[in-house]
Amino acid sequence: MTEGTSPAPLTGVVVIDLGQIYQGPYATFLMARAGADVIKVEPLTGEPLRRRESEGVGPSFPLAFLNSNKRAVTLNLKEERGRELLRTMVERADVLLENFAPGVMDRLGVGARELMELNPRLVYASGTGFGLSGPDRDRLAMDVTIQASAGVMSITGTPEAPPMRAGPAMADFLGGVHLYGAVVTALFDRSRSGRGCLVEVAMQETVYPTLLSDLGLQYRAGGEQAPRRGNRHGAVAPYNVYATRDGHIALICTADSHWQSLLEAMGRQDLADDPRFSTTSLRAENEAATDEAVSEWAARLTREEAYEITRAHRIPSAPVRDLSEVTNDAHMHQRGMLQWVDHPTLGEVVLPNSPLRFHQLEQPDLNPSPVLGEHNKEIYGDWLGLSLQEISDLHDDGVI
Amino acid sequence: MTEGTSPAPLTGVVVIDLGQIYQGPYATFLMARAGADVIKVEPLTGEPLRRRESEGVGPSFPLAFLNSNKRAVTLNLKEERGRELLRTMVERADVLLENFAPGVMDRLGVGARELMELNPRLVYASGTGFGLSGPDRDRLAMDVTIQASAGVMSITGTPEAPPMRAGPAMADFLGGVHLYGAVVTALFDRSRSGRGCLVEVAMQETVYPTLLSDLGLQYRAGGEQAPRRGNRHGAVAPYNVYATRDGHIALICTADSHWQSLLEAMGRQDLADDPRFSTTSLRAENEAATDEAVSEWAARLTREEAYEITRAHRIPSAPVRDLSEVTNDAHMHQRGMLQWVDHPTLGEVVLPNSPLRFHQLEQPDLNPSPVLGEHNKEIYGDWLGLSLQEISDLHDDGVI
Repeated sequence: MTEGTSPAPLTGVVVIDLGQIYQGPYATFLMARAGADVIKVEPLTGEPLRRRESEGVGPSFPLAFLNSNKRAVTLNLKEERGRELLRTMVERADVLLENFAPGVMDRLGVGARELMELNPRLVYASGTGFGLSGPDRDRLAMDVTIQASAGVMSITGTPEAPPMRAGPAMADFLGGVHLYGAVVTALFDRSRSGRGCLVEVAMQETVYPTLLSDLGLQYRAGGEQAPRRGNRHGAVAPYNVYATRDGHIALICTADSHWQSLLEAMGRQDLADDPRFSTTSLRAENEAATDEAVSEWAARLTREEAYEITRAHRIPSAPVRDLSEVTNDAHMHQRGMLQWVDHPTLGEVVLPNSPLRFHQLEQPDLNPSPVLGEHNKEIYGDWLGLSLQEISDLHDDGVI
Repeated sequence: MTEGTSPAPLTGVVVIDLGQIYQGPYATFLMARAGADVIKVEPLTGEPLRRRESEGVGPSFPLAFLNSNKRAVTLNLKEERGRELLRTMVERADVLLENFAPGVMDRLGVGARELMELNPRLVYASGTGFGLSGPDRDRLAMDVTIQASAGVMSITGTPEAPPMRAGPAMADFLGGVHLYGAVVTALFDRSRSGRGCLVEVAMQETVYPTLLSDLGLQYRAGGEQAPRRGNRHGAVAPYNVYATRDGHIALICTADSHWQSLLEAMGRQDLADDPRFSTTSLRAENEAATDEAVSEWAARLTREEAYEITRAHRIPSAPVRDLSEVTNDAHMHQRGMLQWVDHPTLGEVVLPNSPLRFHQLEQPDLNPSPVLGEHNKEIYGDWLGLSLQEISDLHDDGVI
């Protein structure tokens, strides 16, 4: 059922992509891999990820990661002729997406209201940290400050140490994929109403649902937040990361049957009738002793041995893998989620596919990210109909 | 532009929701808040979150959180009459969504192939840990084991301590929102092709992009993964969480101008010409001294004082807030992302809205989550046309 026989789902959808860094570009990456025609519009010096390249630190891996299958043009929105070109593109486009701070596009005179008047079928998509309204609208937002304000840090790490950042850029990417969902929903709505709309996603709001386990524990505790739990669960044991001879394994027993299987796997049936361990809540009460039994066993094995034994016994477990292991994961490569690509500026690198998989529908081949302004002639010439002379003049005048 | 004057975007879309725990129910929560008619189908004892309620631990906050605006029926898929009812619903539905382990629905005889033959317009959505194909397909997947295998733990926490779990259930919710995006994309595709399709999302694949900052650093280091960085960045300083008199503040200086502003805010212009701090990379090289200067200053203030001063100076910063502060956040309440609801079983609780915001389109009022089988008569009677006697017999026979 996986071979594609029908066109990719977003074929023919034209997206004007003013996205920068992570949130916006991830949303439009998902669109591009689903077949949309994504035109990445950058200032003359490039979007911030591109500008870091020119600071002499070498090619930007994040830029390559997020911009496959897009076409790239330069455009100076501080020039009226630049804004005029944007309006011309918007008249022919389905989606405009940006993740500037709130109000930036309005102040340039190309805000949602103006552009949707120009093209009532336009879906105008805004990604921000805190949203387009409310008292915190204009707060500076980056992944790490969102993690602080949204509560992530308060539930990550151990009670002895300060609140801890989650390593992944989870706020940026949760923001990006919600923005994708909002845009596609608006396109579906337009297929029936004939009208576009303004869609909006605030990173902080996309993070809130991920706190759910801890919000649930807090509700149960009458409103009090428990101390940070590190790798432990609090109400379930074993639930931890255990050191093996050559790495770590994560292992949890959410059911009593898991614990009985684990005792068998560890050759510790002598504990089967130990009253300290007979139920989940008793094991949680005796967490230190429970963890000690598992730690003793794990310390004698390699990570792979510990994982294979627990897997064979159907106990939820996983080796704690590093980035190289994940990037070279045979499973994700076999599924086509990851692939080796010979990128024009980065060389041989592993780039991702979209996590959205549509059986029976085609998917475009992965086309490496464009260089700055690579498609100026194609977009401004072939698509908008400007002459080579006009394009050359716009370039000389600092408009594109 | 925010007042809704047109119907909600997914009005009229009928979703058969076999989702359980977090991933599936979050996807259908987003659908329900966007106006879809979501029918939550549960086994006779309820989905796992509901079963925990009956274990005597009290009402489930997560169940209430994720199931607003859904209707709930019971259905025993192990009975052929139960499967027959499912097929009848599928014939009239637009979407069927499930996040069982791969193969469960196939073994019951109601897999994607069978159901899509019955209704070629059906969008069949599968959410799993590792996907429907590949060597790891059948691995047990929970948020914590995905975090281990997907690399999250390898980049969270400090180098001295073991790899650390990110506190939020990020794998579950990234999986859920990607699944939402895939379903709506398929609905958009169907609006043009007339055909549904099988869409698939694997949690591990949705996590991979969030590693991007660390993948970029690894690429730049020639393939070597740096030690865990705790709250620090490595190449940017200040970038950390600092203790104040009554809590913590996250603060970063991504530009030299931020540092100059910070010196002003701290009253430390004496450091303006200090050669250790003159550029981002020098401050990163002298991270300990940089952090010491900020820590000394922060330790004398309250968290709110430190935040207000840095905010006034346009330095990216945020108070590290706990769950109660986030849940009572005036900004998110004002925006309608959070609201106090009198829930029939939980009492007064704060429940979330959808982070997807469609200006000009209506949104249904928040309708608290249903009890088990609350809508059996409405769905099996009013919708499918069964008589009260038939419904009563199905109930007595353990089918619904």
